[in-house]
Amino acid sequence: AHIVVLPGDGIGPEVASSGVAVLRQVAQRFGHAFAFDEHAIGGDAIDRFGDPLPPATREALLACDAVLLGAVGGPKWSDPSASVRPEQGLLAMRKLLGVFANVRPLKLHPRTAALSPLKPERTKDVDLVFVRELTGGIYFGAKTRDADGATDECRYSVAEVERVVRHAFDLARSRKRKLTSVDKANVLETSRLWRSVATRVAADYPDVELEHQLVDSMAMHLLTRPADYDVIVTENMFGDILTDEASVLAGSLGLSPSASVGGPGAGIYEPIHGSAPDIAGQSLANPLGTILSVAMLLRHSLGLQAEAEAVEAAVGQVLTHGNLTRDLGGTATTHAVTRAVIDALQ
Amino acid sequence: AHIVVLPGDGIGPEVASSGVAVLRQVAQRFGHAFAFDEHAIGGDAIDRFGDPLPPATREALLACDAVLLGAVGGPKWSDPSASVRPEQGLLAMRKLLGVFANVRPLKLHPRTAALSPLKPERTKDVDLVFVRELTGGIYFGAKTRDADGATDECRYSVAEVERVVRHAFDLARSRKRKLTSVDKANVLETSRLWRSVATRVAADYPDVELEHQLVDSMAMHLLTRPADYDVIVTENMFGDILTDEASVLAGSLGLSPSASVGGPGAGIYEPIHGSAPDIAGQSLANPLGTILSVAMLLRHSLGLQAEAEAVEAAVGQVLTHGNLTRDLGGTATTHAVTRAVIDALQ
Ligand SMILES: CC(C)[C@H](C(=O)O)[C@@H](O)C(=O)O
Ligand SMILES: CC(C)[C@H](C(=O)O)[C@@H](O)C(=O)O
Repeated sequence: AHIVVLPGDGIGPEVASSGVAVLRQVAQRFGHAFAFDEHAIGGDAIDRFGDPLPPATREALLACDAVLLGAVGGPKWSDPSASVRPEQGLLAMRKLLGVFANVRPLKLHPRTAALSPLKPERTKDVDLVFVRELTGGIYFGAKTRDADGATDECRYSVAEVERVVRHAFDLARSRKRKLTSVDKANVLETSRLWRSVATRVAADYPDVELEHQLVDSMAMHLLTRPADYDVIVTENMFGDILTDEASVLAGSLGLSPSASVGGPGAGIYEPIHGSAPDIAGQSLANPLGTILSVAMLLRHSLGLQAEAEAVEAAVGQVLTHGNLTRDLGGTATTHAVTRAVIDALQ
Repeated sequence: AHIVVLPGDGIGPEVASSGVAVLRQVAQRFGHAFAFDEHAIGGDAIDRFGDPLPPATREALLACDAVLLGAVGGPKWSDPSASVRPEQGLLAMRKLLGVFANVRPLKLHPRTAALSPLKPERTKDVDLVFVRELTGGIYFGAKTRDADGATDECRYSVAEVERVVRHAFDLARSRKRKLTSVDKANVLETSRLWRSVATRVAADYPDVELEHQLVDSMAMHLLTRPADYDVIVTENMFGDILTDEASVLAGSLGLSPSASVGGPGAGIYEPIHGSAPDIAGQSLANPLGTILSVAMLLRHSLGLQAEAEAVEAAVGQVLTHGNLTRDLGGTATTHAVTRAVIDALQ
């Protein structure tokens, strides 16, 4: 399998190299051949090529089986009025690969649950997955600016809604068979479309229970009764806000993986944390979010179920018994935690 | 002063009548004459007049000094594809009165802080106010629907952004002099406009510290370090989500007031909770959110500072010593809690 590695900015290179080290160990233990191909994205790509997604990166993305991404962005390139910005690389890559479904599981490990800002009785039994639409909506609609003001258009086609909703129904079917679709149908036309498509598709999934939630209520229920949810599907902008809100429940952003899938080609796998430039280069970053993203890569893009489970079990062992990084209250370096996972994978 | 009372749906009539009772007591104690004029809105108005904001209500709104609103909506009218919906009355009223600034203070009372899903060390010292833009953005932009899909346009003019940002700066100046402006400037053109206007206006407020936050980060920081914020200003849709998320921190929605102000005429005052049809008509609703909204009405629309403080002090006493409603762990009825506040106001 060909894997494109995009280290990116800040702590991105450190956690990406942890992910690669774990993949090498998986290849050795299970007898696979993985080829790694490193390319530039984000601020690093702007600095080196003046382009947050250079042609060589685009070419490699279109030819590979999966993408492992570190993190993108940082204060150095963060002026929102700059004509070239790191996150444009991210958005262009999502569109290029057509990865319309951003999948973010949220599950709490007992040792890290204590770090959650929520009381333990609220986070008990939380085991949910967000499916965020990733290539449509207001992110990619027409934008205008004139002396008087500015506009952003939010557009969804029936087909765009249907494919991501089906993805979520399929996922719910493999889990607790409960799907929550989030919209703002009392105000937005795109949300009324969303709701009507979700309701129609539900007829094909009589074994899955579909519920509709307004986005403002969802923002509350995520905090008051998160354990009641299984799969949550929503559009791009709402998903951006709600997935970040939900990620806080886990106690540390450092542990959470994500997958962006659904396109004809490669999926993109990355930790949900940012580039954390303040701790870059010091081996302080938590590699576990990236390593759990590697497990998702093995499962979803390479179809290697046993390998994915082995990685998750190794992370589970380290979480239970190991010395963790600073964000989880430990004193271990990025290297040491990565090494511990690799040892547990022997 | 002429006050229009809009009881609305569900528990709306019960809490609105609590608010009126408190206003009558204020009038008596401080020697004012308040005239109350009750009108229909929402589902109740649809049932009686086929219109969620009937002409008689519109006329009264344009002629009064302040509006006290109960709550609007309920499952009976909640089909999002229905051609007439209760919340249309709310949106039309906001536009009619031009109330572009929705103000929501968030402060925890020691007795109710225990009910928060957040750990007490996180909510300690929280004392913030949201200013949500209320008459622009994607809520009021052009909407289209065709066989292929749907669109919603988000538009902001420079003037719309500037007036609400100035409102927030003025408020910050009267508090801890810290303003956080929330946008998605790394993706949206309206957000880049928002950020540039906020930055320009900041020059007129050298004594206020302005910080910009991306909406997804804000959704996290509200949970991890809410005590770090003073005044938070944002556009309509982001404000809808973030204010509801933040309201959960208080432990009960029943306690939180809101004011919608800034227009040439009356301001609208209402509790943030919904119409809660499941407990309607049973004297179970918490009237304190409405009563604290009455305090905001006295202060902002009638300029009665001492009266507002007297109401807040009375609520404080009841919160500290009284039997509270069920949502706050007590056994008192809506009537009993209202009576306790009125007694404390003698
Ligand atoms: C960097 C930004 C464009 C991006 C988004 O909003 O999609 C990020 O917040 C994310 O969630 O991956
Ligand atoms: C009912 C709905 C239209 C309304 C809104 O989204 O503004 C409500 O959620 C609110 O926040 O007052």
